[in-house]
Amino acid sequence: MRAVGRIWKNSGKLADGREIIYFDESPGLGRAEVRDGRKLAAIPSKWGPPESGLRWDPLAGEWVVIAAQRQDRTFLPPPEACPLDPSAPGRPTEIPAASYDVVVFENRFPSLRGAADGRPAPGLDTTSGLMVEYPAHGRCEVVCFTADHDSSFAQLSPGRVRTVLEAWADRTEALGAMPGISQVYCFENRGEEIGVTLHHPHGQIYAYPFVTPRTRRMLEMAAAYTARTGGNLFDDLTAAEVAAGTRMVTRNGEWIAFVPAAAKWPYEVMIFPARRVPRITELDEAARDGFAGLYLDVLHRLDALFGAPLPYIAAWHQAPSGPGHEEFAAHLQVLSVRRAPGRLKYLAGSESGMGVWINDIMPETAAQRLREVL
Amino acid sequence: MRAVGRIWKNSGKLADGREIIYFDESPGLGRAEVRDGRKLAAIPSKWGPPESGLRWDPLAGEWVVIAAQRQDRTFLPPPEACPLDPSAPGRPTEIPAASYDVVVFENRFPSLRGAADGRPAPGLDTTSGLMVEYPAHGRCEVVCFTADHDSSFAQLSPGRVRTVLEAWADRTEALGAMPGISQVYCFENRGEEIGVTLHHPHGQIYAYPFVTPRTRRMLEMAAAYTARTGGNLFDDLTAAEVAAGTRMVTRNGEWIAFVPAAAKWPYEVMIFPARRVPRITELDEAARDGFAGLYLDVLHRLDALFGAPLPYIAAWHQAPSGPGHEEFAAHLQVLSVRRAPGRLKYLAGSESGMGVWINDIMPETAAQRLREVL
Repeated sequence: MRAVGRIWKNSGKLADGREIIYFDESPGLGRAEVRDGRKLAAIPSKWGPPESGLRWDPLAGEWVVIAAQRQDRTFLPPPEACPLDPSAPGRPTEIPAASYDVVVFENRFPSLRGAADGRPAPGLDTTSGLMVEYPAHGRCEVVCFTADHDSSFAQLSPGRVRTVLEAWADRTEALGAMPGISQVYCFENRGEEIGVTLHHPHGQIYAYPFVTPRTRRMLEMAAAYTARTGGNLFDDLTAAEVAAGTRMVTRNGEWIAFVPAAAKWPYEVMIFPARRVPRITELDEAARDGFAGLYLDVLHRLDALFGAPLPYIAAWHQAPSGPGHEEFAAHLQVLSVRRAPGRLKYLAGSESGMGVWINDIMPETAAQRLREVL
Repeated sequence: MRAVGRIWKNSGKLADGREIIYFDESPGLGRAEVRDGRKLAAIPSKWGPPESGLRWDPLAGEWVVIAAQRQDRTFLPPPEACPLDPSAPGRPTEIPAASYDVVVFENRFPSLRGAADGRPAPGLDTTSGLMVEYPAHGRCEVVCFTADHDSSFAQLSPGRVRTVLEAWADRTEALGAMPGISQVYCFENRGEEIGVTLHHPHGQIYAYPFVTPRTRRMLEMAAAYTARTGGNLFDDLTAAEVAAGTRMVTRNGEWIAFVPAAAKWPYEVMIFPARRVPRITELDEAARDGFAGLYLDVLHRLDALFGAPLPYIAAWHQAPSGPGHEEFAAHLQVLSVRRAPGRLKYLAGSESGMGVWINDIMPETAAQRLREVL
């Protein structure tokens, strides 16, 4: 791992062979040596047809992940059965150790699993058939931010946020180096309103075996922008937002946060580092040090909007894995489906059928509320 | 309108100038002559910046509709205040007449409104700026399927479904001929679970001033398929589904219904006419006659799945307006967010952030359940 001098990384195995990695804020805790005493059936080394896999949508030109094995996954367990708590005597959980700072492990109900087996990774533009199946190679990991079941990301200390950031960087590097992995995606779903099935504060990491539609489109738009103007799309966009000011939410010396001019969601914040890097792994020390203050500020503002924790999705956009794509700007998008107290934004006919988003809240109004709410 | 010899179309105006059109199953009812006695403030002739408008998303390469005026729209009124019931003495509604068969009127809280004013319709690929605004030209209409507040589309008679189909065809033709309209979209949202704010059985029609991302992508995929194989993507896809059989749901001589191989939603059915036409307007009499039987069959199967009315979105995919695009195949996509009793499919991190759908139900399993449920 990166020698940042602040965290200690140790890997172990769970009872069914899944990898677990502790990111500790102090040395010598021996957490990875604690044995997982559960009897768990081994899970298949990979998912493939027919029970699951990637399917090609020939009308949309996209891969869809079919993951029938996930239908029975853990669903809103009572607090005393939370699988993300540390283990306690008589109550083994997914984390064998008696405590942890940040811990990452392979999801027990993954959508993507296993390394590519020599067949080429699916190419989005070379598929010629109508019904193409491909093994759902990849990896799904769970990131627990704190051992405290009742906490939330917004309540983490700045030091803990820094540890989470290091874990994201570590996983981006490690998973991006796996055979057949095209892209690593770190994200957090927060709130039952968006389908969260476990309340313990946690995020997820997906390692996809293809470049996702959203990222592919951004790369296309960035290339077209450079061809048209000679500039960099992300640099010019962030500079324009800073200059306009009307959609800015907050900033510090290392990061800026703004509501995008064409926001699709009632409350949506884009967080960019001041200096463009394509992946989290390439953030320098100053950017890493500055992240916690700005991100916690944004989350506090979002939670203050309606006087209750806001359901949100926090999505780390990164360039495809490996070197290159220096033109891409890694950024964190936080979006919320709440449009007013007790009212959610749904994806209805226009969004789900046609891909046209309708937003009832002016982006400038959303930004002003977020600036003034604290 | 098309002289189908079965319905009588009459247009009138509501108190604030909005158009209302009755599609009657018998002549001489004089419904459009009933005056709307309400005092309603006139609504602006169009929506434009700054209060609303189209905004260009430079990272996604898509238009987003900002419609701040809709935040205060009617939200789940009690049954006695339903604005889609016919008017009664002392209770004026959006429909002045004392009854109706099928009625269409301009939405009081539209996202799109007004005709293009001479400026060119926005071109998706010619926009060079980072923050482009454009008036939200277009039209949003409401389609009431029946005067019976407690009914549903699945409970309509075949004759009434035929009348609705004629109304869709009429509006596709009329709105497609409006200046600056690129595409007409007929759809129904059903169920509070997907954000429906009025329970009275109704659908909507959007006339967009641009070709939507979903349609644009389908046209691109169809062109690439023809370049690659010489065949038509839609013809070959539907023929392949009929031949495979494993995802077929039901069919008659004029229509087929199947679950797509790469279904994105737990229950998703694609309904194609046996003979490809680019728009509803081009369906022949035999296809129009055959539609009700098949569609009602599909809806009955969906409602039988969980023993309760299924929340769904029914989306009519059509070619862009005007002549041409003969290669496109109009089809009706019905998708549901329910994955199990009491459990919904949410758009979480992978879908909302990366555009990668994960479906927990095998399409073949969904099709088998739909085949066997009745």
